[in-house]
Amino acid sequence: MGSKLTSRKTDYSKWYNEIVVNADLAENSAVRGCMIIKPYGYAIWEKMQAELDKMFKATGHENAYFPLFVPKSLFEAEEKNAEGFAKECAVVTHYRLKNDEDRPGKLKVDPNAKLEEELVVRPTSEAVIWNTYKTWIQSYRDLPILINQWANVVRWEMRTRLFLRTAEFLWQEGHTAHATKAEALEETRLMNQVYADFVENYMAIPVIQGTKTASERFAGAEETYCIEALMQDGKALQAGTSHFLGQNFAKAFDVKFATSEGGLEHVWATSWGVSTRLIGALIMTHSDDNGLVLPPNLAPIQVVLIPIYKGEEQQNEIAEVASQMKQALESQNIRVKFDNRDKFKPGYKFNEYELKGVPLRIAIGPKDLENKTVEIARRDTLTKTIVSQEEVVAFVSSQLESMQEDLFQKALDFREDHITEVDNFDQFKTVLADKGGFISAHWDGTTETEEAIKKATKATIRCIPLEPAQETGACVFSGKPSNQRVFFAKAY
Amino acid sequence: MGSKLTSRKTDYSKWYNEIVVNADLAENSAVRGCMIIKPYGYAIWEKMQAELDKMFKATGHENAYFPLFVPKSLFEAEEKNAEGFAKECAVVTHYRLKNDEDRPGKLKVDPNAKLEEELVVRPTSEAVIWNTYKTWIQSYRDLPILINQWANVVRWEMRTRLFLRTAEFLWQEGHTAHATKAEALEETRLMNQVYADFVENYMAIPVIQGTKTASERFAGAEETYCIEALMQDGKALQAGTSHFLGQNFAKAFDVKFATSEGGLEHVWATSWGVSTRLIGALIMTHSDDNGLVLPPNLAPIQVVLIPIYKGEEQQNEIAEVASQMKQALESQNIRVKFDNRDKFKPGYKFNEYELKGVPLRIAIGPKDLENKTVEIARRDTLTKTIVSQEEVVAFVSSQLESMQEDLFQKALDFREDHITEVDNFDQFKTVLADKGGFISAHWDGTTETEEAIKKATKATIRCIPLEPAQETGACVFSGKPSNQRVFFAKAY
Repeated sequence: MGSKLTSRKTDYSKWYNEIVVNADLAENSAVRGCMIIKPYGYAIWEKMQAELDKMFKATGHENAYFPLFVPKSLFEAEEKNAEGFAKECAVVTHYRLKNDEDRPGKLKVDPNAKLEEELVVRPTSEAVIWNTYKTWIQSYRDLPILINQWANVVRWEMRTRLFLRTAEFLWQEGHTAHATKAEALEETRLMNQVYADFVENYMAIPVIQGTKTASERFAGAEETYCIEALMQDGKALQAGTSHFLGQNFAKAFDVKFATSEGGLEHVWATSWGVSTRLIGALIMTHSDDNGLVLPPNLAPIQVVLIPIYKGEEQQNEIAEVASQMKQALESQNIRVKFDNRDKFKPGYKFNEYELKGVPLRIAIGPKDLENKTVEIARRDTLTKTIVSQEEVVAFVSSQLESMQEDLFQKALDFREDHITEVDNFDQFKTVLADKGGFISAHWDGTTETEEAIKKATKATIRCIPLEPAQETGACVFSGKPSNQRVFFAKAY
Repeated sequence: MGSKLTSRKTDYSKWYNEIVVNADLAENSAVRGCMIIKPYGYAIWEKMQAELDKMFKATGHENAYFPLFVPKSLFEAEEKNAEGFAKECAVVTHYRLKNDEDRPGKLKVDPNAKLEEELVVRPTSEAVIWNTYKTWIQSYRDLPILINQWANVVRWEMRTRLFLRTAEFLWQEGHTAHATKAEALEETRLMNQVYADFVENYMAIPVIQGTKTASERFAGAEETYCIEALMQDGKALQAGTSHFLGQNFAKAFDVKFATSEGGLEHVWATSWGVSTRLIGALIMTHSDDNGLVLPPNLAPIQVVLIPIYKGEEQQNEIAEVASQMKQALESQNIRVKFDNRDKFKPGYKFNEYELKGVPLRIAIGPKDLENKTVEIARRDTLTKTIVSQEEVVAFVSSQLESMQEDLFQKALDFREDHITEVDNFDQFKTVLADKGGFISAHWDGTTETEEAIKKATKATIRCIPLEPAQETGACVFSGKPSNQRVFFAKAY
């Protein structure tokens, strides 16, 4: 604490890592690529989970739990999905350790405890779940199945970054089964909309909804819907995806149902997920060179009360006022911490909570006792206001509300400023290099062009927007005809 | 549905498995020993989690998340702990699959992707957590650390049973660090008390608190506190444990702190956990030959409303009354389901909810419309009462409350009836064979005697009770002097 963060301008990536570590959100562990989510970071995840879980249940979903391990023979059943994840699978091959005769007190893998069939640590659960749905689904009466799972998954990524890309991460994965294509498509879109609502209303991050191109789709999906956000460094971040899986998994696992008309058909599937990666997006969207900035709706502590005093008597007088204020705020469901620790100075505490992104800080000193006031500082604007003690609850409530709105609006303004329509490839490269953000450009619809642009610029098509301005034009790269602009960007 | 369960008398173990599967709680998966927790079973776990989590937070604990994998070198650092779990570890040795040239479309482990150091899938997280605490703890100011984790763990058990013993299970594990032995011991006892309160007040299962003998202790602990419950077949079930780990992990991971007096000392540790195993205890304590019986405090559905009608018009009339009733009950925070499915007959629904242990069933038929009444059936007693519609909310509230109490009292009466004081070994064997339950007997305090009794009878010392009647006597096996009775039982 006290030592300044690297500024965003100096080194955005370093700034990000310093916030994650110094704000006590997470840290690297002894296991390559796996992170430790510290209590403060986990408290944000719990708030996110609670809101998402409510939204899933409100749309008819139930939670369940499926095994961590996927037998290799199940994993490989849906070939595209298997191919997509094969290169990053942690594989369990043995089920026992034994004493190492050569190194007393140490252990080694027991060669006699080799598994007959290797187990893949789930990178995603379609395989193990569809192998189960096979026994759950016989008739149209058994449909739809609307299940969500909160779980850990493992993808052996080579380059990892805290929250953004880790070998193990926490997520939720929805897996639904439907009698018709139309119903499955509706579910796919509904859940993408749920994600958009959550990310915009709770995380205060504006998103663009769209679909992925064939090459950016989830392995095994026929269509991938997504929400795309824009970070302060001009790079995009995929914040959530919702997949229409067609009948691919039903065919791979032979899941058929008797229709109400007496036929026998393969079941239609969706899957959708968001992960702890969202915390990375949260940090990168709102935070500043002083540290984390948290939207009030997700802040574990919304208001911190800090006493400023000399001597025990004054501390006690202030503590009485602060405790009453805490109670009054809590009665309005506001999350409050009263930091009355004597071993730290007020300035140290100010820094700490600024770094940790607590939305509002209330300081109470001897003068405030006299005047029946407090000083309230707002984390996003860094403004300070003297407020009479009587009006604290009303002031805090309205500031929390407006801060939530202002953070969204600020991020939206930034995003809108960073969508640039571009009509030739030179301009494409210049905008990408100088300004970043989303580039709205015509594309001829081929994977070849997409690949060529990616190779030349590192920009990918983030999405084909759901609500495009229908307009004809020429592909920014090939010059071939196009009737819709798509969004390109460099991305996390 | 409809087909009767095996009775407890005929085959207790079969009865248990049938309830788990037929009440839609869980089922076996394609992965040996790993279960699928189905939505209804998971909803019970969610209720349990929510209450426990509140209790942990109320006692000052925070949640965090540590990696799934433990590098072998960390795993083996605390030797007793490592030895205790080495024989049941799932081990990740590779991080990639590749195409199998010999079997087109299939995958095999890529021999070039062998990990330099094997990773153990956590059977418990002391090692990975204490390796982390090492960097978090420098001074007495950093203590105590009071952290809990909700997670999945893997223990490669050879004989598995749904909920009771599975290769993967869900649990919470608390891991705390303290400056003094006294504080760590206080924490150990506090969390055992929290478990006792939860299990008695929410699960309606009476427990005996005690400590384990040296041979039954957690691997690496200096003292293990536990809560022991009694199942209807007279076998005991360990429902939760809280361990005083002394300085063992601090020494293994070299975790020292500067004391306030300027010294340097090893940190004191505790860990404590309960798991999805508790759901097995819940089932076996209260259920009957008709199916599951759930205590209202944990029932996902507390009241089910079932309409009895002929024709659409009658269905609509009843639905109106039922919907209003549902709303009135929900306004009192009662969890209600209105099952208005037309494709199933009332009798089928009655069976289904009886099997699923829903505490109260409200049936509304045409006569009830006329008389402004309903019929309310209580799951535990199978009694039916005609209640006027006006009084439904009050009646339901009081019945849910009394059912919660009655279930506990019934289980307590059974448990008290099944604690038998025994003073010689012949009697010990007879009681164990004919009656089961807890045997309260004198023990000479040696591991030899404990082992000899276990070998002769399969009974183990479940615990040394916390509140013993101090009395001198002679060991039931060796005749040597003893000054306290302990509890023996066969156990799950």
